[in-house]
Amino acid sequence: MTTAAAIIVAAGKGVRMGPNTDKIFLPVAGRPVVAHTWERFDRAPCVSDIILVIREGMESAFKELAATLHLTKPCRFVNGGKERQDSVWNGLQALDPAAQIVAIQDAARPCTGAELIAATIQAAEEMGAAVAAQPLTDTVKQSDDGVLIARHLDRSRLWAVQTPQTFRVEVIRRALAKVRDQGIQVTDDTAACELIGQSVKLVPSPHPNPKITAPIDVPYVEMLLNRIHAVEQAQLIQLHGYG
Amino acid sequence: MTTAAAIIVAAGKGVRMGPNTDKIFLPVAGRPVVAHTWERFDRAPCVSDIILVIREGMESAFKELAATLHLTKPCRFVNGGKERQDSVWNGLQALDPAAQIVAIQDAARPCTGAELIAATIQAAEEMGAAVAAQPLTDTVKQSDDGVLIARHLDRSRLWAVQTPQTFRVEVIRRALAKVRDQGIQVTDDTAACELIGQSVKLVPSPHPNPKITAPIDVPYVEMLLNRIHAVEQAQLIQLHGYG
Repeated sequence: MTTAAAIIVAAGKGVRMGPNTDKIFLPVAGRPVVAHTWERFDRAPCVSDIILVIREGMESAFKELAATLHLTKPCRFVNGGKERQDSVWNGLQALDPAAQIVAIQDAARPCTGAELIAATIQAAEEMGAAVAAQPLTDTVKQSDDGVLIARHLDRSRLWAVQTPQTFRVEVIRRALAKVRDQGIQVTDDTAACELIGQSVKLVPSPHPNPKITAPIDVPYVEMLLNRIHAVEQAQLIQLHGYG
Repeated sequence: MTTAAAIIVAAGKGVRMGPNTDKIFLPVAGRPVVAHTWERFDRAPCVSDIILVIREGMESAFKELAATLHLTKPCRFVNGGKERQDSVWNGLQALDPAAQIVAIQDAARPCTGAELIAATIQAAEEMGAAVAAQPLTDTVKQSDDGVLIARHLDRSRLWAVQTPQTFRVEVIRRALAKVRDQGIQVTDDTAACELIGQSVKLVPSPHPNPKITAPIDVPYVEMLLNRIHAVEQAQLIQLHGYG
C-alpha cells in the first residue's frame, strides 16, 4: 500500500457559520469537528504523517486538543495564509522532503474514511492528481442574474468535488506555483491543476462525505458520525470479542 | 393571498431505492413519506385542492392512507403515465377548470413548507412560472467521461431546483403540449417552459427541502421532519396553551 503525507487545512474563518464562530471547533458528536477529521487521518493506515495548517495564534488550542485525542502519528503545525491556496502552499513547504504523495483535506469534513483516502492516493500515484467526488443528484440550472433560470445543465456530467484532493507532490507544487506566479485565485486545488494541463481523476466517495459550512449541516454530520462510530465499535467487538 | 391547486406526483417507481421498494410508501418518521407531503399541502393555507397522481391500481392503498390522516381539503386521484411529464399532464387534465395557478410537487419531498409553497404561487402569478431552488454549496466540475474532470463550473451561478414547480395553468399546459408534440423528454417542468420561451423565476427555499431518492436520504429527512414537528408543536402550545 502506498502511503502519503496529509495536509489538513484548518485555517479557515468559516464566514457562513456566523460571527464569532470558528467552525472547525464547533462541537459535533461530542467533540470539535476538527478532532474527528484529525483522528480519521491519524488512524488511516495509508497516511504516514500529518501537517495541520492553522490560524496564527491557535497552536496552543490545537495542542490542548491533541492531548485529549489518542494520536499515533507525527503531526506538525504550520500557519495558514490569506487564502486557502496560500494555506495549502504553506503546508506543502513543511512536507518531509521524501514525501511523494500528499492528500489535502478540509478540516471541516469529518466523515472522510480510510478507504476513500487510500483510493485517492492510489489514483494520484497513477495519474498525478485525484479528488474525492460524488455525482450530483440535484437537477441543476444556471442563472446569470440569480433570479431567472438561464439554462438547464446535464446532470449526468456533473460531479460535486470534495476532499481529499490528492496529488504527486511535484504536481501540486508546480500547479500552485503557477497560481502564485499569475496572481490568480482558485476555488480548489484541482482547479490549479488545470493551469498546468494536469488531468485530475474523479474518485467516487462510497459514503456521504459532507463539509460543515453552515449550522444547518451540524445535525446531519452528527448523525453520520454516530453511524460511523457504531460500525467501528461493532467491528472492534468482532475483532477482539467483548472483553 | 392567492391560492392554487396542487398536483402531487406520486406515480414514480423510485428505481434508485432498490427492487420491491415503493419509495413514496417508505416509512419516514413513523409514516409513509407521501403522507407527510400530502399533509403539508393539505394544511397549507395557499392550497385550495389537491390532485394525487398515482400508479394504476394504487387507489385503494391511497384511500386507506387518507383515512389515517386528518385531511381537510378535497383530493382526487388520477393515474400516472409512462414518464413524469405524462403523469403531470394527466394531473393537469383533472384540474378544476377555474384553476389559475398550479403547484406541482414531488411526493418524495416531504419537508416543503407552506411559506415556500406560497412564495412560488406568488412568483408564478407575477411571472408565469416559478420553482423552489437553492444555491449549490458544492464545488462542481463537469466530466465528459465520468473519469476525468473536463472543466470547472462557476458555482455562484448554479442552483439546485426542487419542487414545488408552480405555474399559471395555461403556461404549463402550453409548455407540456409542446413537449408532447415534439415527442421529447424533459427532466422537469421548468425545462418544458424553455421550449415556449417562458421565463422561470427561482424562489429560494428558506429551509432544506430534500427529496428521498436513495435509502441513505431517509435518516436525514427523518431528522428534518422531527424538527419541523417539534417547531409546529411549540407553535400550537403558544397559540392554544397546554390544555
